[in-house]
Amino acid sequence: MLSIGLLGCGRIGRVHADSIATNPRAHLARVYDPFEQAASAVGARFGAQTTTDVDDIIGDPGIDAVVIASPTPTHIDLLTAAVEAGKAVLCEKPIDLDVALVDACAQRIDDLAGRVMLGFNRRFDPSFADIHARVAAGQLGPLEQLTIISRDPAPPPAAYVATSGGLFKDMTIHDFDMARFFLGDVVEVTATGSNLVSPEIEAAGDIDGAVVVLRGVNGAVATIINSRRAAFGYDQRLEAFGELGMLRAENQLPTSVTFSGATSTQVAPPYYNFFLDRYTPAYRAELDAFITGVEAGTGFSPSFADGRAALVLAQAADESVRTGATVAVPGPDLDAPVTP
Amino acid sequence: MLSIGLLGCGRIGRVHADSIATNPRAHLARVYDPFEQAASAVGARFGAQTTTDVDDIIGDPGIDAVVIASPTPTHIDLLTAAVEAGKAVLCEKPIDLDVALVDACAQRIDDLAGRVMLGFNRRFDPSFADIHARVAAGQLGPLEQLTIISRDPAPPPAAYVATSGGLFKDMTIHDFDMARFFLGDVVEVTATGSNLVSPEIEAAGDIDGAVVVLRGVNGAVATIINSRRAAFGYDQRLEAFGELGMLRAENQLPTSVTFSGATSTQVAPPYYNFFLDRYTPAYRAELDAFITGVEAGTGFSPSFADGRAALVLAQAADESVRTGATVAVPGPDLDAPVTP
Amino acid sequence: MLSIGLLGCGRIGRVHADSIATNPRAHLARVYDPFEQAASAVGARFGAQTTTDVDDIIGDPGIDAVVIASPTPTHIDLLTAAVEAGKAVLCEKPIDLDVALVDACAQRIDDLAGRVMLGFNRRFDPSFADIHARVAAGQLGPLEQLTIISRDPAPPPAAYVATSGGLFKDMTIHDFDMARFFLGDVVEVTATGSNLVSPEIEAAGDIDGAVVVLRGVNGAVATIINSRRAAFGYDQRLEAFGELGMLRAENQLPTSVTFSGATSTQVAPPYYNFFLDRYTPAYRAELDAFITGVEAGTGFSPSFADGRAALVLAQAADESVRTGATVAVPGPDLDAPVTP
Amino acid sequence: MLSIGLLGCGRIGRVHADSIATNPRAHLARVYDPFEQAASAVGARFGAQTTTDVDDIIGDPGIDAVVIASPTPTHIDLLTAAVEAGKAVLCEKPIDLDVALVDACAQRIDDLAGRVMLGFNRRFDPSFADIHARVAAGQLGPLEQLTIISRDPAPPPAAYVATSGGLFKDMTIHDFDMARFFLGDVVEVTATGSNLVSPEIEAAGDIDGAVVVLRGVNGAVATIINSRRAAFGYDQRLEAFGELGMLRAENQLPTSVTFSGATSTQVAPPYYNFFLDRYTPAYRAELDAFITGVEAGTGFSPSFADGRAALVLAQAADESVRTGATVAVPGPDLDAPVTP
Repeated sequence: MLSIGLLGCGRIGRVHADSIATNPRAHLARVYDPFEQAASAVGARFGAQTTTDVDDIIGDPGIDAVVIASPTPTHIDLLTAAVEAGKAVLCEKPIDLDVALVDACAQRIDDLAGRVMLGFNRRFDPSFADIHARVAAGQLGPLEQLTIISRDPAPPPAAYVATSGGLFKDMTIHDFDMARFFLGDVVEVTATGSNLVSPEIEAAGDIDGAVVVLRGVNGAVATIINSRRAAFGYDQRLEAFGELGMLRAENQLPTSVTFSGATSTQVAPPYYNFFLDRYTPAYRAELDAFITGVEAGTGFSPSFADGRAALVLAQAADESVRTGATVAVPGPDLDAPVTP
Repeated sequence: MLSIGLLGCGRIGRVHADSIATNPRAHLARVYDPFEQAASAVGARFGAQTTTDVDDIIGDPGIDAVVIASPTPTHIDLLTAAVEAGKAVLCEKPIDLDVALVDACAQRIDDLAGRVMLGFNRRFDPSFADIHARVAAGQLGPLEQLTIISRDPAPPPAAYVATSGGLFKDMTIHDFDMARFFLGDVVEVTATGSNLVSPEIEAAGDIDGAVVVLRGVNGAVATIINSRRAAFGYDQRLEAFGELGMLRAENQLPTSVTFSGATSTQVAPPYYNFFLDRYTPAYRAELDAFITGVEAGTGFSPSFADGRAALVLAQAADESVRTGATVAVPGPDLDAPVTP
Repeated sequence: MLSIGLLGCGRIGRVHADSIATNPRAHLARVYDPFEQAASAVGARFGAQTTTDVDDIIGDPGIDAVVIASPTPTHIDLLTAAVEAGKAVLCEKPIDLDVALVDACAQRIDDLAGRVMLGFNRRFDPSFADIHARVAAGQLGPLEQLTIISRDPAPPPAAYVATSGGLFKDMTIHDFDMARFFLGDVVEVTATGSNLVSPEIEAAGDIDGAVVVLRGVNGAVATIINSRRAAFGYDQRLEAFGELGMLRAENQLPTSVTFSGATSTQVAPPYYNFFLDRYTPAYRAELDAFITGVEAGTGFSPSFADGRAALVLAQAADESVRTGATVAVPGPDLDAPVTP
Repeated sequence: MLSIGLLGCGRIGRVHADSIATNPRAHLARVYDPFEQAASAVGARFGAQTTTDVDDIIGDPGIDAVVIASPTPTHIDLLTAAVEAGKAVLCEKPIDLDVALVDACAQRIDDLAGRVMLGFNRRFDPSFADIHARVAAGQLGPLEQLTIISRDPAPPPAAYVATSGGLFKDMTIHDFDMARFFLGDVVEVTATGSNLVSPEIEAAGDIDGAVVVLRGVNGAVATIINSRRAAFGYDQRLEAFGELGMLRAENQLPTSVTFSGATSTQVAPPYYNFFLDRYTPAYRAELDAFITGVEAGTGFSPSFADGRAALVLAQAADESVRTGATVAVPGPDLDAPVTP
């Protein structure tokens, strides 16, 4: 049984608390949040101790690992402290909005790869993971084109947008990681942004839609299509294409029921509304992979370096939108992801 | 080029006129209908001569074949006259409502199998024909269960019901033939009727829904589910099941468009409304098979005997509904259908 | 927190243990099995005490409820003892193979409806439950036709068949309950059996395929199609049809991935293999409904009477297969189910 | 009846011959091809006169209209001669590979819009046309994102590539027109090319895959994904996305049959192999629209100007691939397409 402390009891923190509570190899020892009420609510729901002092978790030798689900600006400090206290760490994305701070963190901590796992949960989605495994096994031949359609159901509040780092670092970062999961290192980024959804987002200086084209080191091309709003729910699809065929993951439905009536046929229920519903199995599988990684002691995937690499792509996409030109991505990544 | 005369210019007659006109191996020489207006309308549309005297077609040595699309009570007389005049005949179902008259006709005409094809168009539906071919080729192993769902979009007028011979002889007869197409000879019929759709049909002494279970000579079991009304359009589906798997033919849609909106996802357009839309390719393929049969001179499938056999099953189903008991089907058929 | 004891640690017992362990309102206090190893395995997996003496659970005042997952012949004795000891009971189907024993049990226990819930888990399948709710809400108008396709992936061992009570009491009983869930009381049963799958089953005097037609008290007709074997996995589908349209629940897939290659398109993964995969959410929802029923004290659905009624239909189907005639179902049920 | 002459009896010429022959408002008077055998084969198949002298058609006052299906370099000369001879013209895409020649042609001929229709047949595909009509009717609100996936089944011969004008002018040109059909005038093109399919194409200096991002005058963004090869057949899909939802057109299948077996479920047949199968209804509807345009005398859509505009986008895409930068599209189009 891995004893886990949870840092942050907001929406995503509760998702992790649930994953920990339902995993037979994990025990949710203690939860932290600066707001006592938030910590108490999660503690009571899952039978864990609570604290508003992060040292009660990081300093507790009985706790083996921490899950960092606090606001982005706190990630690096908490991550550094936890690793230095000997904990294994599962940290939510992004590591930080500033690549320089990320690099400074990497320099301070030896062997990050062995101690920090990044929370790119979508790698653990059963459908995306299945496609990745089949591509890796050669079912398509070498991957040639990857298409990721990723639309949120509704734009976030303006206040959130202001501190989010922008669409690419906040939302597309998942898709950048997914592209790297399939393509390996990315060498070229071409991005187009648009403001068609929310005047508040435009006023905050951010875009609310994008198309990003990435070229991987082996020549494969990934296309990411984003929007901050989709009337029909969370739009999360992926297609991998190669010489031998195509693998597609469609959106998912809560039931298999369809209705046929006088004006239409085969009306399915709405898609899952958002990530809490759609990616519950992915979050649980992510935690399970984290526990396995801790037990095996062989490092994590996705790693801290994967977190940095996705951030670098987000930065390149911002530059491409600004300049209207393709941006070459500098140098090799800190460590290479598993390339199909 | 096969020169063809059309007997009957009603709804189904116009379907055949279209099949003849678009077939490069056929020429629509002349069309007959007792109502001059009906004949003229079809003649003008397809560039054919018209007549209100059936002998202008049956007695014309320049006409090679006739398609009989007139009311059921006229079928046997026209069929007999046409065969005796040396024509090949494609006759709409049912041959007649009375098996005794059908048998008398068969006794009068030698070699019916070589000269008369029955208009069970659904055997030529590309999807059903594909399943039949794959079952015949052994893709499922021996056929074990067949499920036919067959629902009309709306009940016919009460006047039509009165002379239709009842649900089994009028509507289910297509499904009886489809069952025989897959099962070969049927040895046992168990039928259940219901009156849930139309008070007029009940008043006319007929049923408007049914479930019929047929056992074939090799033990396979077919289930037919009928209704005289389906809000969502023409419901025409078939599933074949055997040791190695299942083949399914779904309803068909006029486009591949789906809509996803705020309250639902993947809303497809309505199904084809009725047989004129759904079975156009089947009617065309049927005529083509008829022409091939005439040219090859090797007989037709489905044959006159297939028409009789379906009628016998309809009669058995009527008896089963009346008695609440399974009915054994007498003796071997006149000639056996091709059995998968 | 409801403290629950589990009686029986076989395959279905482990399913219930998992449902109890993951339900935040339940605590798995103790598990019983006459085989110590079986009890220990489940106890260790879910952190529960174990016993080979059933009285350690039924006689324990700290245990509020029991789940009976032992072999069918033990159901009535355990159920009676548990109810008399003041426990709420969730009992697996069937209650017993003998209606007379079931009736004797009912006479002995007052207020069965308030204390015993029957384990017809499929009522809690999210898709079937959704259709039931929409039919009850009138989306189809009055229900006219119900089609249930229910095929197991592979036949059970011959030894199991010998004591199973036959296809109708062992396998179809779930479908009989589903028919009653939608139709209310059933007044008429017409059944056809076949032996196409397993010579061992035929040797044991049982059938391995069936088509059953049921007429409900309001005239609606249900068709059940069964087979003991389906090459492609567990085949569990349902269609409800009425004046305003149709609701369909399709088989379910573990991922949304499809593959398109040179010889075919849109190849989906296999269906769920069997009930452990397909109905996990249903078993969890069933337990949740049981807990709610205990807490509310307002009785259970499905009830003991529902268990009896399904058994009566199985018996009628056996008779119909034997006699080749429709069987009228006697009298009103002990208590009526909720009818849409 | 419109009397039509066909110029060019190659693969696409035969498609037009079939459309003309099956259209009740058209008569295929004469077909031209410099190769007598090609002309004869088409003439015999469709009962038309033949010639190897183009003036036999263009100079024949009895012929009302011509369809130009000859090699691209001949288009402008034939089109000019035909219009000057008073014929209505349906001309295959592209008009020419050189925009300057296209402009010179436009200057020479007055009122091109009224006399020349461009053969962008996909506008008439029933599914794409249905989506366009529904977008135009406001079902999505203002269009925000359009995704076009367009992959050929197999790369063309190297000899064809050499004279094709390159991927964008030869293949993507259909997609550029489709983008303009939905977005109206395009103001910005960003293109990425790749060579992953065919070494011969690379040796010929062309690309065999591309992702093109287009921004329309109203801000909507279209993404086109191309490949010269798809193992699973002709990949032709389109998605329109707006505030109120999404409309999708999927690939199409020749039957509705699926097979479920031991290793997979729901295996559909292959997609249509190529445009001859997939777009037959579109070609027929295109010809019908052409005839209607001739009869109404109100001009054609898509027009000569639409043909030029698609060519300009192809040119801009070539430049974007070469420079790695977004290319602004000059000025207003000659005449504006119908904008949804």
